[in-house]
Amino acid sequence: MKLEASASGVYPIAPTPFHADGRVDVQSIDRLCDFYVESGCTGMTVLGVLGEAPKLDAQEALDVAFRFIKRAPSLPTIVGVSAPGFAAMRSLARAAMDAGAAGVMIAPPNTLRTDDQIVSYYSQAADAIGADVPFCIQDYPLNFSVVMTPLVLKRIITDNPSCVMLKHEDWPGLEKISTLRKWQAAGELRHVSILCGNNGLFLDFEMERGADGAMTGYAFADMLVDTVRLSKAGRRDEAHDLFDAHLPLLRYEQQPGLGLNARKYILMRRGLLSSHALRAPGGSLSAAAVEEIEYLLARVARFDKRAACPPLADKARSA
Amino acid sequence: MKLEASASGVYPIAPTPFHADGRVDVQSIDRLCDFYVESGCTGMTVLGVLGEAPKLDAQEALDVAFRFIKRAPSLPTIVGVSAPGFAAMRSLARAAMDAGAAGVMIAPPNTLRTDDQIVSYYSQAADAIGADVPFCIQDYPLNFSVVMTPLVLKRIITDNPSCVMLKHEDWPGLEKISTLRKWQAAGELRHVSILCGNNGLFLDFEMERGADGAMTGYAFADMLVDTVRLSKAGRRDEAHDLFDAHLPLLRYEQQPGLGLNARKYILMRRGLLSSHALRAPGGSLSAAAVEEIEYLLARVARFDKRAACPPLADKARSA
Amino acid sequence: MKLEASASGVYPIAPTPFHADGRVDVQSIDRLCDFYVESGCTGMTVLGVLGEAPKLDAQEALDVAFRFIKRAPSLPTIVGVSAPGFAAMRSLARAAMDAGAAGVMIAPPNTLRTDDQIVSYYSQAADAIGADVPFCIQDYPLNFSVVMTPLVLKRIITDNPSCVMLKHEDWPGLEKISTLRKWQAAGELRHVSILCGNNGLFLDFEMERGADGAMTGYAFADMLVDTVRLSKAGRRDEAHDLFDAHLPLLRYEQQPGLGLNARKYILMRRGLLSSHALRAPGGSLSAAAVEEIEYLLARVARFDKRAACPPLADKARSA
Amino acid sequence: MKLEASASGVYPIAPTPFHADGRVDVQSIDRLCDFYVESGCTGMTVLGVLGEAPKLDAQEALDVAFRFIKRAPSLPTIVGVSAPGFAAMRSLARAAMDAGAAGVMIAPPNTLRTDDQIVSYYSQAADAIGADVPFCIQDYPLNFSVVMTPLVLKRIITDNPSCVMLKHEDWPGLEKISTLRKWQAAGELRHVSILCGNNGLFLDFEMERGADGAMTGYAFADMLVDTVRLSKAGRRDEAHDLFDAHLPLLRYEQQPGLGLNARKYILMRRGLLSSHALRAPGGSLSAAAVEEIEYLLARVARFDKRAACPPLADKARSA
Repeated sequence: MKLEASASGVYPIAPTPFHADGRVDVQSIDRLCDFYVESGCTGMTVLGVLGEAPKLDAQEALDVAFRFIKRAPSLPTIVGVSAPGFAAMRSLARAAMDAGAAGVMIAPPNTLRTDDQIVSYYSQAADAIGADVPFCIQDYPLNFSVVMTPLVLKRIITDNPSCVMLKHEDWPGLEKISTLRKWQAAGELRHVSILCGNNGLFLDFEMERGADGAMTGYAFADMLVDTVRLSKAGRRDEAHDLFDAHLPLLRYEQQPGLGLNARKYILMRRGLLSSHALRAPGGSLSAAAVEEIEYLLARVARFDKRAACPPLADKARSA
Repeated sequence: MKLEASASGVYPIAPTPFHADGRVDVQSIDRLCDFYVESGCTGMTVLGVLGEAPKLDAQEALDVAFRFIKRAPSLPTIVGVSAPGFAAMRSLARAAMDAGAAGVMIAPPNTLRTDDQIVSYYSQAADAIGADVPFCIQDYPLNFSVVMTPLVLKRIITDNPSCVMLKHEDWPGLEKISTLRKWQAAGELRHVSILCGNNGLFLDFEMERGADGAMTGYAFADMLVDTVRLSKAGRRDEAHDLFDAHLPLLRYEQQPGLGLNARKYILMRRGLLSSHALRAPGGSLSAAAVEEIEYLLARVARFDKRAACPPLADKARSA
Repeated sequence: MKLEASASGVYPIAPTPFHADGRVDVQSIDRLCDFYVESGCTGMTVLGVLGEAPKLDAQEALDVAFRFIKRAPSLPTIVGVSAPGFAAMRSLARAAMDAGAAGVMIAPPNTLRTDDQIVSYYSQAADAIGADVPFCIQDYPLNFSVVMTPLVLKRIITDNPSCVMLKHEDWPGLEKISTLRKWQAAGELRHVSILCGNNGLFLDFEMERGADGAMTGYAFADMLVDTVRLSKAGRRDEAHDLFDAHLPLLRYEQQPGLGLNARKYILMRRGLLSSHALRAPGGSLSAAAVEEIEYLLARVARFDKRAACPPLADKARSA
Repeated sequence: MKLEASASGVYPIAPTPFHADGRVDVQSIDRLCDFYVESGCTGMTVLGVLGEAPKLDAQEALDVAFRFIKRAPSLPTIVGVSAPGFAAMRSLARAAMDAGAAGVMIAPPNTLRTDDQIVSYYSQAADAIGADVPFCIQDYPLNFSVVMTPLVLKRIITDNPSCVMLKHEDWPGLEKISTLRKWQAAGELRHVSILCGNNGLFLDFEMERGADGAMTGYAFADMLVDTVRLSKAGRRDEAHDLFDAHLPLLRYEQQPGLGLNARKYILMRRGLLSSHALRAPGGSLSAAAVEEIEYLLARVARFDKRAACPPLADKARSA
């Protein structure tokens, strides 16, 4: 099952669950997988930046990827293979595909500046991993400081047949989606899947501009699935009603750094993770932040019952 | 009337209104001033980055500042004086104070890296403008790439008695406010006013962490005033209800670049600006973006009638 | 006398001389001008970054430019007009041309990333200053973090007839010169003058690759003139012998920040400046640095007598 | 044999030799090692950025390091272990030490900004690799965009007993060395070894300011050894005479990107490498660049016979 340009729906960015002592928590991996399947997700992405991939050593990374893939065989899995060099990228990509991955995701190193540098980088990366490995471009200027114009994306897509997906997380990015879809409609660009990241902050309008779905880690993947479904069905107001109910919390979870702590905390509160621990180095939530998240969860729950969590035991609060 | 460390409430970042042909629109300046006063704003800020200050020549900049100051004498006005050199900064700061400004705002040049470089820069800037000119630090890493730790802010505040205010727009930034207020409570730091920027994206919680108000340009300054007021009065749920109703639109307006087009469009729709034109170079809103803003306004209006705008004439739509 | 694409030779980057108390030192301006003329320079550039332009207020900047222009009427003078906005850029450019400047130099703001952003910026700048004002592109990635490919330069040159010169200071940059000259030879690009900066660190080979001369502030403009002359005359070994004799000192002067202190110190030792003072904020030379420069001057003087300075009075040493 | 704070002399940055087809060239590794020993080097550094470490996969990297270590058992070897995450850093560091390395070198990720971020990073890295692994700080702002003040270095050295060396390659950096040595002389900082990088561009003066030697990859490690020796012996003029004779070539080799091609070409011309190939992706030298290097070699050879290379076979020229 290889990743295809027709992919759509929701590919959650899976966190890597850890126990409080830093060990990988495999039971929580299984629970996450089951949740993704039950929620109607159509794929998943592992070992991304917010999957704490850089904190895993090479063997652990493969073990984690393999556990996800094996538990949810119905979901095509994308493995993040961004690396400081092409040799490491190739090793990880080949191993991931051997383990059953559907494709890989490649982010640009933050030293790239010119259009040609970016285009060359993706050609070299595509060569390195092999033409048989489908890949997804990660376009996230806010994080990587690499700015890709629509034309640069067009060149990468045109130059590399194995490029089948764009993880769109430019900000602002609505016009970029419209431009790519316009070129495609005019026959100037082949279709690739566009899934939206940046924690889904503009998912409501991105869908309306032509995106195929979401690839992000917001703790309510089930909400993302519903928003995408409602939007595709043309039920605009309902899509926005649901999205807007979550937006205050989604915004809170989108904060750099701290956001991953919040996300894991919410996933723990939803019963999916045993612990909200990050592997070191990683910050922790202050008591004030925990209270704010609880308050936001309670507010979301007025509209979406899935946000209603059981009362917070004192023990859990301090976990 | 000089800016004081006890300042609080809402200091909107005033846009500079232009006619479609690029001339400054002084009637719209007057309307904005009247609106700020009527809305309960407690001050205002002119010639900031989102006031298109760099597009004004020196004389125009002073004329614009003077017009704002003269029309709203009851509002202490802060003038942005960030400049590539201290000579120009001094010239503008002295001229602004002579014209009746209450204080100035200084952003760091994006070449600063180390803690000491940042601290030195503000000492030199304070010397350059003169000890009699109260100033506000603009802490906006997302825009300036300069990261100020709480300790750096403490050093700047301690070293420079004329520093009376922090425009807080770090992201994430809630813990920074808590840290500064904790130091202040412990007597380790004198009080300065903390007003929040970054389009108010976290204003709801920033108030609860100890901020004194907002300094941002969201097109509904009147909503900011109400949110600040409700929060200070301890009416937490009401503050969040109002804030959350606006959040989908506020988020839309916060987009870099495009956001200023959206803001001016909304201000035009509210009858405050004659035109939503930016002075060149400046982008414009696509038809899709206009439709999205209109949709968001209509949704906000379900909760807050102030967002109900008159039907859109075809002419205005294409202005 | 307007700047033309046929310009060649040496356009020194003139420092702005200050007295120790911070006042502009006009007598030293006159001495510098006379020295440039006597040395065989073919033009000069004022108000660049290393001319401490940002430390001058608007009136001072014009006064300085005018003094240079008036004293050396035989030298076409380029005025740096880089500014945070096009309004200020236009004001300074028009005023400079009115005062007798031959053209202006424009550096890109360090926020530009993509090829299109850079090309657009120069088109907007050319529009802002007016089509009648010849301009020079400053291509200095080390300082501005903006990387211009040869193709981007080609687009700027092709789009803007008033672009007549490239201040080349990319690093490495030899292949860039070769590429531009190859396109020109093939009739794919019109000729523009290429003058080399970056303190002349590669001037020896840049001339051999097709540059027309130097635009840099090394304290021995007379050496630059000779190196350019020898290289153009095909006297390769002599050009390198002279250049290499200066290279240890030239390298020392090229250090960011500190380099300008060293340059002014050497110019003072050569009798051209009354003081090596920088206007605040600016560092100073340590005793160790002064000793190192004196040592290097003495070593250069073994080959080039122009580096032989009179014995150092104790007073001057501590100036 | 563990790396100690008393280390001095020359630790060349060893390139990784490749055959033209991309395979690691182990015979050339052996030749390099023998050359380093015969030249009087006192250690060596492998798998640095200019050792093309990111192009090696994990097993290759260890094989390369092991080959160097085994061939030159008398030289303490430092292994570069900079990595995007602490897990990979730890794995490589432990494996390197097991293979006989004397210590490791750690560069900061280019996302660090504030003083505290840098200090924390090194504490976390020291914890990750283990307190028994001596490490060297790589302070190279030009490459990593991370600026470490002397005070930050002092904090890192003081906080981490396993920090025994600073690879100094700040630019400018002479005053930094003086400051650290002054603190040490005053008993405020323990001694660590300071070896100089940045291709040795300021090695002449860095030694005089208190550096212990060089850690850089200039193709004439034997010249570096002599310069360090002469400088330490107080034979100042001789040290500068030798250094200055090489400076034109050394400067050429210091160019980012292209410099490594030049370095490998010179090492090939000296008979140490079989090929000057870089593993893909890596540029190549133009015919003009080859001619320039040959010209510079011939010029250096007038002073230093070690630069006299055998006539260039046509075959080698195009290798």
